[in-house]
Amino acid sequence: MKIIQQPDEKNWEELLKRPTQDFASLESDVKAIFEDIKHNGDSAIKKYTQIFDGISIEDFSVNPEAIEHSTDNISAALKEAIDVAYDNIFKFHLAQEQVTIKVETLPGVKCWQATKPIEKVGLYIPGGSAPLFSSILMLGIPAKIAGCREVVLVTPPQQTGVVHPAMLYAAKKCDIKSIYQVGGIQAIGGLTFGTERIPKVYKIFGPGNQYVTVAKQVATTYDVAIDMPAGPSELLVLADDSANPTYVAADLLSQAEHGADSQVILVTTSNDLAEKTKDEIYAQLELLPRKDIAVKAIENSKLIVVQNIKTALRLTNQYSPEHLIICLNAEDEAIDQIYNAGSVFIGNYTPESAGDYASGTNHTLPTNAFARQYSGVNLDAFTKKMTYQKISKEGLLHLGRHIEVMAEAEELQAHKNAVSLRLKDLNTPDS
Amino acid sequence: MKIIQQPDEKNWEELLKRPTQDFASLESDVKAIFEDIKHNGDSAIKKYTQIFDGISIEDFSVNPEAIEHSTDNISAALKEAIDVAYDNIFKFHLAQEQVTIKVETLPGVKCWQATKPIEKVGLYIPGGSAPLFSSILMLGIPAKIAGCREVVLVTPPQQTGVVHPAMLYAAKKCDIKSIYQVGGIQAIGGLTFGTERIPKVYKIFGPGNQYVTVAKQVATTYDVAIDMPAGPSELLVLADDSANPTYVAADLLSQAEHGADSQVILVTTSNDLAEKTKDEIYAQLELLPRKDIAVKAIENSKLIVVQNIKTALRLTNQYSPEHLIICLNAEDEAIDQIYNAGSVFIGNYTPESAGDYASGTNHTLPTNAFARQYSGVNLDAFTKKMTYQKISKEGLLHLGRHIEVMAEAEELQAHKNAVSLRLKDLNTPDS
Repeated sequence: MKIIQQPDEKNWEELLKRPTQDFASLESDVKAIFEDIKHNGDSAIKKYTQIFDGISIEDFSVNPEAIEHSTDNISAALKEAIDVAYDNIFKFHLAQEQVTIKVETLPGVKCWQATKPIEKVGLYIPGGSAPLFSSILMLGIPAKIAGCREVVLVTPPQQTGVVHPAMLYAAKKCDIKSIYQVGGIQAIGGLTFGTERIPKVYKIFGPGNQYVTVAKQVATTYDVAIDMPAGPSELLVLADDSANPTYVAADLLSQAEHGADSQVILVTTSNDLAEKTKDEIYAQLELLPRKDIAVKAIENSKLIVVQNIKTALRLTNQYSPEHLIICLNAEDEAIDQIYNAGSVFIGNYTPESAGDYASGTNHTLPTNAFARQYSGVNLDAFTKKMTYQKISKEGLLHLGRHIEVMAEAEELQAHKNAVSLRLKDLNTPDS
Repeated sequence: MKIIQQPDEKNWEELLKRPTQDFASLESDVKAIFEDIKHNGDSAIKKYTQIFDGISIEDFSVNPEAIEHSTDNISAALKEAIDVAYDNIFKFHLAQEQVTIKVETLPGVKCWQATKPIEKVGLYIPGGSAPLFSSILMLGIPAKIAGCREVVLVTPPQQTGVVHPAMLYAAKKCDIKSIYQVGGIQAIGGLTFGTERIPKVYKIFGPGNQYVTVAKQVATTYDVAIDMPAGPSELLVLADDSANPTYVAADLLSQAEHGADSQVILVTTSNDLAEKTKDEIYAQLELLPRKDIAVKAIENSKLIVVQNIKTALRLTNQYSPEHLIICLNAEDEAIDQIYNAGSVFIGNYTPESAGDYASGTNHTLPTNAFARQYSGVNLDAFTKKMTYQKISKEGLLHLGRHIEVMAEAEELQAHKNAVSLRLKDLNTPDS
């Protein structure tokens, strides 16, 4: 892990490059599997579960009884932690509810905008050895608040044949009743087309490996929406001498343990902080169970020393990190000047893992510089907005001739005619 | 144009099918042009402008002077109409501004969500014989309110060499200063990669033909966002005997004149309305300058008579129209029960063309049943939301152990460690 001293701005683009990802080669395989699922439904789902997961599964839907009784099988401490996290995430997402906006733009011309839930959504939760119940909370809670009518959860089957009770408990808290043990490309294909068992949905959410990522991209070509394009996880820490190197190192490592392709960056005005953080990283690394993964991520990562905060802010906005920790004496000024980041963590006592689990904010965030144009998952992501208008006779008398002039200028005579016929009646004494 | 009587629900899917579109064959051409633009910039832009538009253009950027003096060259009536439309659209979109949401989820755990403009956006405005200044207002106004720092407008070059003054005037009102005469695939490619003259943007908006549609889809694979997937325009009129068949026919035709692939549908409980609307359509059609186009769209279109309003509402939600006109005695109940539509027009004096031009709502709306999961363009579309959190020592003492338990259960030890190190210090008497 190198300390980079005051890099020239013209080299920033190269310096801040993400580890490249190109999954284009997977696309044709995904399309073939999708076509198979489209035509053969559950029998294709079972076939690919056998091929990719090595598991033969007859009924991959999870029994509602198992969801109901999930509480029996997790520790009291974990249950309490999930309850606390649920409450915080619920509060923060409930506060995002939007009221109907009403404007009378001219007398008699009433326009309004209302928010409606997306009726049918699918949540993908990755498998692996550990149960990712936190992602269920992050997706299931806003879906519940939005009022989505049908929430379908898919997760890869386990060799044990059962879904981890902590996942079932998180799902239960979110009122999720449809859970299917199916993962990877075939899970996304099932949600895209619907099968005998798996309902078709309108939007698919959730993290996943490269197969899931490509499958979600391909799903968009079959008229399904997705939460956002996905990439490896990232953290940038923006700090001066007010930061604690032990904490900075721990935060950088917490992101590095996600995967070998994760990227963590320290941008600082303090050479001393950079040096001490580097030493702390290597010391703490030794004790991590996921050391092998974290070491590789640390190799991709950078400690950058810059001249002043202004430069540090410009560099941070250019990188547009998924997660940003700010530990600066002048934190308020910095917060105002950051405009490209997914989620921002402020001060010495705000580790990124608080937002990953329990503080209330969402952990599904834009990676790969997508913070420039995408929001993280929030309540909005489970809704859409519809507009309405009602024009009275008086309103059309105010507005009508302007519509006629504009339609005429755009050479759309039938658009004009729809107004002219009405105005003619309104200007007739008997109307 | 056939009147369909009480179709069986199991045939609805077939009945409501959109005219199919498959542009997959264009994809490889678009990719080749994109690669050329990526590597050769403006010289590639000029080459494709010569090939596709038959126009040789040296400097395709529009002189700021021409924008400034646009008012001199349009009629007073058109200027006034654009001014009125601008004011209404501005009012309605300004009302969509969102405040920062702040929640203290636990004592000492402060979370908030703020809205930020997308820094760089591109607006595509189609060419053709008529100047589509209305689309400039619909995209330029929310971009201005959002505070996008760089708004780039592209539109195909005209044989005259100049952009229509009504378009320049609309752009001037929206404070747009960067306008380039470049259209089609090469315009979208230019915005995606940036060239010597054209700035790279983060999100591309606007309507277009099949080449532009495919180019926007391909742009998303190069990390650019787009407003929404596009398809031919649609209108569904939901009416009973309170509707006026002359107006209904005029509204259906106003949508039909957009293109041969447009689709218009009447769903009604009144057989009499269906019959009279049909007669009116054929009568009004004769007088339209764009009759040839409208005739073809009318061939794709349907007049559907159903038993009752409940069935009509179900059918409408299933179709999920871009534009929906409601003319019913019991309009309020119907409004509440519609949950899939782009924009809704209510009553006998609310022609769809009001929303196309001047009432205040946006006319960039989800087609092809995308109203199920996408909003139309609105102020949100030009912004993204960032979340923030600041946890005090007290806050971490409340929350920390729950984060530790959850991280442990998900087998992410470094996530736990970032909390444990801090808690250790906080629980040490001197801290």
